Amino acid sequence: MASLTEFSLAETIAVLTRTPATLNALLRGLPDVWVHGNEGKDTWNAFDILGHLICGERTDWMPRVRIVLESGEAQTFDPFDRFAQEKESQGKSLEQLLDDFEALRAKNVAALEALNLRPEDLERRGKHPELGVVTLSELLATWAVHDLTHVHQLSRVMAHQYRDAVGPWKVYLGVLRCSGHSAP
Amino acid sequence: MASLTEFSLAETIAVLTRTPATLNALLRGLPDVWVHGNEGKDTWNAFDILGHLICGERTDWMPRVRIVLESGEAQTFDPFDRFAQEKESQGKSLEQLLDDFEALRAKNVAALEALNLRPEDLERRGKHPELGVVTLSELLATWAVHDLTHVHQLSRVMAHQYRDAVGPWKVYLGVLRCSGHSAP
Repeated sequence: MASLTEFSLAETIAVLTRTPATLNALLRGLPDVWVHGNEGKDTWNAFDILGHLICGERTDWMPRVRIVLESGEAQTFDPFDRFAQEKESQGKSLEQLLDDFEALRAKNVAALEALNLRPEDLERRGKHPELGVVTLSELLATWAVHDLTHVHQLSRVMAHQYRDAVGPWKVYLGVLRCSGHSAP
Repeated sequence: MASLTEFSLAETIAVLTRTPATLNALLRGLPDVWVHGNEGKDTWNAFDILGHLICGERTDWMPRVRIVLESGEAQTFDPFDRFAQEKESQGKSLEQLLDDFEALRAKNVAALEALNLRPEDLERRGKHPELGVVTLSELLATWAVHDLTHVHQLSRVMAHQYRDAVGPWKVYLGVLRCSGHSAP
Protein backbone atom coordinates (compact mmCIF):
# COMPACT_ATOMS: atom_id res chain seq x y z
CA MET A 1 0.00 0.00 0.00
CA ALA A 2 1.37 3.35 -1.03
CA SER A 3 -0.02 5.00 2.08
CA LEU A 4 1.91 2.71 4.38
CA THR A 5 5.25 3.08 2.66
CA GLU A 6 4.94 6.84 2.88
CA PHE A 7 3.75 7.08 6.48
CA SER A 8 6.17 7.33 9.38
CA LEU A 9 5.09 7.60 12.99
CA ALA A 10 8.19 9.61 13.94
CA GLU A 11 7.61 12.08 11.08
CA THR A 12 3.99 12.47 12.06
CA ILE A 13 4.83 13.10 15.70
CA ALA A 14 7.44 15.66 14.57
CA VAL A 15 4.63 17.73 13.01
CA LEU A 16 2.17 17.20 15.86
CA THR A 17 4.65 18.38 18.48
CA ARG A 18 5.47 21.59 16.59
CA THR A 19 1.99 22.94 15.88
CA PRO A 20 1.29 24.51 19.31
CA ALA A 21 4.58 26.46 19.25
CA THR A 22 3.95 27.49 15.65
CA LEU A 23 0.53 28.91 16.49
CA ASN A 24 1.89 30.51 19.63
CA ALA A 25 4.64 32.28 17.66
CA LEU A 26 2.19 33.39 14.98
CA LEU A 27 -0.74 34.50 17.15
CA ARG A 28 0.14 35.40 20.75
CA GLY A 29 -0.19 39.13 21.33
CA LEU A 30 -1.29 39.90 17.78
CA PRO A 31 -3.53 42.95 17.29
CA ASP A 32 -7.26 42.23 17.14
CA VAL A 33 -7.60 42.67 13.39
CA TRP A 34 -5.62 39.48 12.79
CA VAL A 35 -7.25 37.44 15.55
CA HIS A 36 -10.90 38.42 15.15
CA GLY A 37 -11.12 39.13 11.42
CA ASN A 38 -12.71 36.35 9.37
CA GLU A 39 -13.58 35.91 5.69
CA GLY A 40 -17.24 36.89 5.94
CA LYS A 41 -20.51 35.45 7.24
CA ASP A 42 -20.24 31.93 8.69
CA THR A 43 -16.46 31.76 8.30
CA TRP A 44 -13.85 31.26 11.01
CA ASN A 45 -11.34 33.63 12.52
CA ALA A 46 -8.09 32.68 14.28
CA PHE A 47 -9.95 32.31 17.58
CA ASP A 48 -12.45 29.86 16.04
CA ILE A 49 -9.71 27.83 14.36
CA LEU A 50 -7.81 27.45 17.60
CA GLY A 51 -11.01 26.42 19.41
CA HIS A 52 -11.62 23.79 16.73
CA LEU A 53 -8.11 22.37 17.15
CA ILE A 54 -8.70 22.14 20.90
CA CYS A 55 -11.97 20.24 20.41
CA GLY A 56 -10.08 17.79 18.19
CA GLU A 57 -7.58 17.15 20.96
CA ARG A 58 -10.36 16.54 23.47
CA THR A 59 -12.77 14.42 21.50
CA ASP A 60 -11.41 13.26 18.17
CA TRP A 61 -7.85 12.06 17.60
CA MET A 62 -6.73 10.01 20.59
CA PRO A 63 -10.23 8.73 21.36
CA ARG A 64 -10.35 7.38 17.79
CA VAL A 65 -6.88 5.85 18.12
CA ARG A 66 -8.12 4.00 21.21
CA ILE A 67 -11.29 2.83 19.45
CA VAL A 68 -9.21 1.34 16.61
CA LEU A 69 -6.91 -0.47 19.04
CA GLU A 70 -9.66 -1.68 21.36
CA SER A 71 -12.59 -2.37 19.05
CA GLY A 72 -11.38 -2.20 15.45
CA GLU A 73 -14.17 -1.93 12.91
CA ALA A 74 -16.78 -3.11 15.40
CA GLN A 75 -17.21 0.38 16.89
CA THR A 76 -17.86 3.23 14.47
CA PHE A 77 -16.17 6.53 15.47
CA ASP A 78 -18.37 9.23 16.93
CA PRO A 79 -18.84 12.01 14.35
CA PHE A 80 -16.53 15.01 14.93
CA ASP A 81 -18.57 18.06 15.95
CA ARG A 82 -16.96 20.80 13.91
CA PHE A 83 -18.86 23.54 15.73
CA ALA A 84 -18.31 22.46 19.35
CA GLN A 85 -15.82 25.28 19.85
CA GLU A 86 -18.57 27.91 19.66
CA LYS A 87 -19.59 26.80 23.14
CA GLU A 88 -16.24 25.54 24.43
CA SER A 89 -14.30 28.74 23.69
CA GLN A 90 -16.87 31.14 25.15
CA GLY A 91 -15.38 33.67 27.54
CA LYS A 92 -11.81 32.57 26.92
CA SER A 93 -8.97 34.71 25.65
CA LEU A 94 -6.79 33.75 22.70
CA GLU A 95 -3.92 33.31 25.15
CA GLN A 96 -5.95 30.82 27.20
CA LEU A 97 -6.77 28.87 24.04
CA LEU A 98 -3.08 28.78 23.06
CA ASP A 99 -2.19 27.46 26.51
CA ASP A 100 -5.02 24.90 26.44
CA PHE A 101 -4.00 23.64 23.02
CA GLU A 102 -0.34 23.32 24.03
CA ALA A 103 -1.20 21.35 27.18
CA LEU A 104 -3.71 19.05 25.47
CA ARG A 105 -1.45 18.32 22.52
CA ALA A 106 1.52 17.56 24.79
CA LYS A 107 -0.64 15.14 26.78
CA ASN A 108 -1.98 13.48 23.64
CA VAL A 109 1.44 13.07 22.00
CA ALA A 110 2.76 11.56 25.23
CA ALA A 111 -0.19 9.14 25.26
CA LEU A 112 0.43 8.24 21.62
CA GLU A 113 4.12 7.58 22.28
CA ALA A 114 3.24 5.48 25.34
CA LEU A 115 1.28 3.10 23.09
CA ASN A 116 4.59 1.98 21.51
CA LEU A 117 2.82 1.23 18.26
CA ARG A 118 4.41 -1.47 16.11
CA PRO A 119 4.33 -1.38 12.29
CA GLU A 120 1.57 -4.00 12.27
CA ASP A 121 -0.55 -1.86 14.62
CA LEU A 122 -0.50 0.91 12.03
CA GLU A 123 -2.41 -1.33 9.63
CA ARG A 124 -5.22 -1.97 12.08
CA ARG A 125 -8.62 -0.84 10.91
CA GLY A 126 -11.40 1.28 12.27
CA LYS A 127 -14.72 2.49 10.92
CA HIS A 128 -15.42 6.12 10.13
CA PRO A 129 -19.10 7.12 10.16
CA GLU A 130 -18.90 8.58 6.64
CA LEU A 131 -15.68 7.34 5.07
CA GLY A 132 -16.02 3.70 6.02
CA VAL A 133 -12.94 1.57 6.71
CA VAL A 134 -9.77 3.50 7.56
CA THR A 135 -6.43 2.41 9.00
CA LEU A 136 -4.63 3.64 12.09
CA SER A 137 -1.82 5.08 9.96
CA GLU A 138 -4.38 7.03 7.92
CA LEU A 139 -5.90 8.41 11.12
CA LEU A 140 -2.50 9.53 12.42
CA ALA A 141 -1.44 11.03 9.07
CA THR A 142 -4.75 12.91 8.99
CA TRP A 143 -4.13 14.32 12.46
CA ALA A 144 -0.90 15.93 11.18
CA VAL A 145 -2.37 17.11 7.87
CA HIS A 146 -5.38 18.50 9.76
CA ASP A 147 -2.92 20.74 11.64
CA LEU A 148 -1.45 21.86 8.32
CA THR A 149 -4.86 22.50 6.76
CA HIS A 150 -5.64 24.89 9.61
CA VAL A 151 -2.26 26.65 9.36
CA HIS A 152 -3.09 27.02 5.67
CA GLN A 153 -6.55 28.40 6.52
CA LEU A 154 -5.17 30.70 9.22
CA SER A 155 -2.63 32.32 6.90
CA ARG A 156 -5.42 32.83 4.35
CA VAL A 157 -7.84 34.35 6.89
CA MET A 158 -5.14 36.72 8.14
CA ALA A 159 -4.11 37.74 4.62
CA HIS A 160 -7.76 38.41 3.77
CA GLN A 161 -7.78 41.33 6.23
CA TYR A 162 -5.26 43.14 4.01
CA ARG A 163 -6.76 42.20 0.63
CA ASP A 164 -7.36 45.88 -0.16
CA ALA A 165 -4.36 47.29 1.69
CA VAL A 166 -1.91 45.59 -0.71
CA GLY A 167 -3.32 47.52 -3.69
CA PRO A 168 -2.10 46.31 -7.09
CA TRP A 169 0.18 43.66 -5.55
CA LYS A 170 -2.95 41.57 -5.03
CA VAL A 171 -2.27 39.78 -8.33
CA TYR A 172 1.05 38.39 -7.10
CA LEU A 173 -0.15 37.12 -3.71
CA GLY A 174 -1.51 33.63 -4.17
CA VAL A 175 -2.98 33.43 -0.69
CA LEU A 176 -5.49 36.13 -1.71
CA ARG A 177 -6.71 33.95 -4.56
CA CYS A 178 -7.23 30.86 -2.39
CA SER A 179 -10.88 30.02 -2.69
CA GLY A 180 -11.39 28.65 0.77
CA HIS A 181 -11.23 24.94 0.03
CA SER A 182 -9.90 24.62 3.56
CA ALA A 183 -12.78 26.48 5.15
CA PRO A 184 -14.60 24.53 7.83
CA MET B 1 -8.92 55.34 -0.05
CA ALA B 2 -10.08 52.01 1.36
CA SER B 3 -6.56 50.68 1.44
CA LEU B 4 -5.36 53.46 3.73
CA THR B 5 -8.19 53.19 6.23
CA GLU B 6 -7.48 49.48 6.56
CA PHE B 7 -3.70 49.68 6.81
CA SER B 8 -1.93 50.11 10.14
CA LEU B 9 1.83 50.29 10.48
CA ALA B 10 1.71 48.76 13.97
CA GLU B 11 -0.44 45.85 12.78
CA THR B 12 1.88 45.23 9.87
CA ILE B 13 4.96 45.24 12.07
CA ALA B 14 3.19 42.82 14.43
CA VAL B 15 3.05 40.27 11.61
CA LEU B 16 6.55 40.98 10.30
CA THR B 17 8.14 40.45 13.71
CA ARG B 18 6.39 37.10 14.25
CA THR B 19 7.22 35.31 11.00
CA PRO B 20 10.79 34.20 11.85
CA ALA B 21 9.68 32.62 15.14
CA THR B 22 6.71 31.00 13.40
CA LEU B 23 8.93 29.39 10.77
CA ASN B 24 11.45 28.42 13.41
CA ALA B 25 8.77 26.66 15.49
CA LEU B 26 7.37 24.93 12.42
CA LEU B 27 10.59 23.86 10.69
CA ARG B 28 13.65 23.60 12.96
CA GLY B 29 14.70 19.99 13.44
CA LEU B 30 11.92 18.58 11.23
CA PRO B 31 12.63 15.27 9.45
CA ASP B 32 13.85 15.58 5.87
CA VAL B 33 10.57 14.56 4.25
CA TRP B 34 8.95 17.82 5.36
CA VAL B 35 11.90 20.07 4.57
CA HIS B 36 13.02 18.67 1.22
CA GLY B 37 9.76 17.40 -0.23
CA ASN B 38 8.20 19.65 -2.86
CA GLU B 39 5.09 19.45 -5.07
CA GLY B 40 6.84 18.13 -8.18
CA LYS B 41 9.12 19.43 -10.92
CA ASP B 42 9.99 23.12 -10.68
CA THR B 43 8.18 23.62 -7.38
CA TRP B 44 9.61 24.78 -4.08
CA ASN B 45 10.30 22.93 -0.87
CA ALA B 46 10.57 24.47 2.61
CA PHE B 47 14.27 25.15 2.05
CA ASP B 48 13.57 27.07 -1.17
CA ILE B 49 10.77 29.08 0.43
CA LEU B 50 12.98 30.14 3.31
CA GLY B 51 15.75 31.12 0.88
CA HIS B 52 13.25 33.22 -1.07
CA LEU B 53 12.16 35.04 2.10
CA ILE B 54 15.81 35.77 2.90
CA CYS B 55 16.41 37.24 -0.57
CA GLY B 56 13.41 39.50 -0.03
CA GLU B 57 14.94 40.80 3.19
CA ARG B 58 18.24 41.49 1.47
CA THR B 59 17.13 43.05 -1.80
CA ASP B 60 13.44 43.82 -1.92
CA TRP B 61 11.44 45.25 0.94
CA MET B 62 13.54 47.84 2.76
CA PRO B 63 15.46 48.87 -0.38
CA ARG B 64 12.09 49.66 -2.00
CA VAL B 65 10.91 51.56 1.09
CA ARG B 66 14.03 53.73 0.80
CA ILE B 67 13.51 54.29 -2.93
CA VAL B 68 9.96 55.53 -2.27
CA LEU B 69 11.13 57.90 0.46
CA GLU B 70 14.18 59.16 -1.40
CA SER B 71 13.12 59.21 -5.05
CA GLY B 72 9.36 58.64 -5.25
CA GLU B 73 8.12 57.69 -8.68
CA ALA B 74 11.30 58.95 -10.34
CA GLN B 75 13.16 55.70 -9.67
CA THR B 76 11.49 52.46 -10.73
CA PHE B 77 12.10 49.56 -8.31
CA ASP B 78 14.55 46.89 -9.40
CA PRO B 79 12.63 43.71 -10.35
CA PHE B 80 12.58 41.09 -7.58
CA ASP B 81 14.62 38.05 -8.59
CA ARG B 82 12.41 35.19 -7.44
CA PHE B 83 15.08 32.59 -8.12
CA ALA B 84 18.08 34.24 -6.45
CA GLN B 85 17.89 31.80 -3.55
CA GLU B 86 19.03 28.93 -5.77
CA LYS B 87 22.51 30.42 -5.60
CA GLU B 88 22.29 32.20 -2.23
CA SER B 89 21.18 29.13 -0.24
CA GLN B 90 23.75 26.74 -1.70
CA GLY B 91 25.65 24.77 0.91
CA LYS B 92 23.59 26.11 3.79
CA SER B 93 21.54 24.10 6.27
CA LEU B 94 17.93 24.82 7.04
CA GLU B 95 19.03 25.90 10.52
CA GLN B 96 21.43 28.47 9.02
CA LEU B 97 18.64 29.82 6.82
CA LEU B 98 16.31 30.14 9.83
CA ASP B 99 19.03 32.04 11.72
CA ASP B 100 19.77 34.27 8.72
CA PHE B 101 16.11 35.09 8.20
CA GLU B 102 15.61 35.93 11.89
CA ALA B 103 18.65 38.25 11.95
CA LEU B 104 17.80 40.00 8.67
CA ARG B 105 14.14 40.49 9.57
CA ALA B 106 15.03 41.90 13.01
CA LYS B 107 17.45 44.35 11.37
CA ASN B 108 14.89 45.38 8.76
CA VAL B 109 12.04 45.87 11.23
CA ALA B 110 14.35 47.99 13.40
CA ALA B 111 15.26 50.07 10.35
CA LEU B 112 11.58 50.47 9.45
CA GLU B 113 10.72 51.60 12.98
CA ALA B 114 13.65 54.03 12.98
CA LEU B 115 12.10 55.84 9.99
CA ASN B 116 9.28 57.03 12.29
CA LEU B 117 6.89 57.11 9.36
CA ARG B 118 4.03 59.59 9.65
CA PRO B 119 0.57 58.93 8.19
CA GLU B 120 1.33 61.22 5.25
CA ASP B 121 4.51 59.26 4.48
CA LEU B 122 2.40 56.14 3.99
CA GLU B 123 0.69 57.80 1.03
CA ARG B 124 3.96 58.49 -0.76
CA ARG B 125 4.28 56.87 -4.14
CA GLY B 126 6.81 54.72 -5.89
CA LYS B 127 6.96 52.98 -9.24
CA HIS B 128 6.85 49.22 -9.62
CA PRO B 129 8.40 47.86 -12.86
CA GLU B 130 5.22 45.93 -13.74
CA LEU B 131 2.42 47.23 -11.55
CA GLY B 132 3.06 50.94 -12.04
CA VAL B 133 2.30 53.44 -9.28
CA VAL B 134 2.09 51.99 -5.78
CA THR B 135 2.02 53.60 -2.34
CA LEU B 136 4.30 53.04 0.62
CA SER B 137 1.42 51.59 2.66
CA GLU B 138 0.71 49.11 -0.15
CA LEU B 139 4.37 48.08 -0.18
CA LEU B 140 4.38 47.52 3.59
CA ALA B 141 1.06 45.64 3.57
CA THR B 142 2.44 43.46 0.78
CA TRP B 143 5.53 42.65 2.83
CA ALA B 144 3.28 41.21 5.58
CA VAL B 145 0.92 39.38 3.20
CA HIS B 146 3.94 38.01 1.33
CA ASP B 147 4.97 36.34 4.62
CA LEU B 148 1.47 34.89 4.92
CA THR B 149 1.41 33.68 1.32
CA HIS B 150 4.55 31.67 2.00
CA VAL B 151 3.21 30.24 5.28
CA HIS B 152 0.19 29.24 3.21
CA GLN B 153 2.43 27.66 0.57
CA LEU B 154 4.60 25.94 3.16
CA SER B 155 1.66 24.27 4.90
CA ARG B 156 0.44 23.10 1.48
CA VAL B 157 3.85 21.73 0.41
CA MET B 158 4.22 19.86 3.70
CA ALA B 159 0.69 18.44 3.52
CA HIS B 160 1.37 17.28 -0.04
CA GLN B 161 3.93 14.78 1.28
CA TYR B 162 1.11 12.92 3.05
CA ARG B 163 -1.52 13.18 0.31
CA ASP B 164 -1.63 9.38 0.01
CA ALA B 165 -0.95 8.58 3.65
CA VAL B 166 -4.25 10.14 4.77
CA GLY B 167 -6.26 7.66 2.68
CA PRO B 168 -9.98 8.46 2.37
CA TRP B 169 -9.70 11.53 4.64
CA LYS B 170 -8.23 13.35 1.63
CA VAL B 171 -11.71 14.68 0.78
CA TYR B 172 -11.99 16.57 4.08
CA LEU B 173 -8.56 18.20 4.03
CA GLY B 174 -8.79 21.43 2.08
CA VAL B 175 -5.06 22.01 1.97
CA LEU B 176 -4.76 18.94 -0.30
CA ARG B 177 -7.14 20.54 -2.80
CA CYS B 178 -5.26 23.84 -2.94
CA SER B 179 -4.23 24.26 -6.53
CA GLY B 180 -0.99 26.08 -5.94
CA HIS B 181 -2.09 29.64 -6.63
CA SER B 182 0.60 30.64 -4.15
CA ALA B 183 3.35 28.74 -5.92
CA PRO B 184 6.27 30.91 -6.97
